[in-house]
Amino acid sequence: MGDSLQNDEQAIRQLVETWTRATKARDVQKVLALMADDAVFLVTGLPPMCKSDFAAGQAGMQQVDIDARSDIEEIKVFGEWAYMWTRLAVTVTPKDGGAPVKRAGNTLSILKKQNGAWALYRDANLLAVVP
Amino acid sequence: MGDSLQNDEQAIRQLVETWTRATKARDVQKVLALMADDAVFLVTGLPPMCKSDFAAGQAGMQQVDIDARSDIEEIKVFGEWAYMWTRLAVTVTPKDGGAPVKRAGNTLSILKKQNGAWALYRDANLLAVVP
Repeated sequence: MGDSLQNDEQAIRQLVETWTRATKARDVQKVLALMADDAVFLVTGLPPMCKSDFAAGQAGMQQVDIDARSDIEEIKVFGEWAYMWTRLAVTVTPKDGGAPVKRAGNTLSILKKQNGAWALYRDANLLAVVP
Repeated sequence: MGDSLQNDEQAIRQLVETWTRATKARDVQKVLALMADDAVFLVTGLPPMCKSDFAAGQAGMQQVDIDARSDIEEIKVFGEWAYMWTRLAVTVTPKDGGAPVKRAGNTLSILKKQNGAWALYRDANLLAVVP
């Protein structure tokens, strides 16, 4: 059990690394492959978003550079399910030389193991603009 | 398994009802009894809060009336753990006749079964002021 849990936790940490790297590289397809088809994204002040909403949002952000850093506070695995708490910081910089905007805060996510691979399933994003 | 899951889901729905009713009644002790001692509350724009931070926040709100409504979107139970997604609306009205402030949005929470009773363990609160 200990080994299996450690392997799952390691796989989830790897997912976060891949997500962060793919976000920086603007590889939207790779990010989409890390979430379940019925994933739901919850943010403050907006209705819940589904996977296609997420994809549309990314497609609308081709004129910016994105730098992201995710520090994992907690991962708990329950068989084929897990939750994760992270501290996330995202800096978006317009390619035309505009001022960068930094957002930071916590995230709480539910992950699901599908065909042996972990995928993001529910995501609460509590980021706020850092003045 | 089906019965047990249904019982757990029913117990979590009961927790939400008790929480909402105790919040309206300003019974802070009853609300505190529904969370784990090491519960963590995540909100947008603030550092994570622990149970004593939550209690202090409630103690500072004696001059208002609170009305809350929680609609449960999803509950999934994994043995002694569960997550829950709700849509929450909270209206805070100053007792001195000031204008009410309504906040609404989603919550994503982790719950934990302790000594046979469900308790809130992690809570992401995505409420925003409704203009």
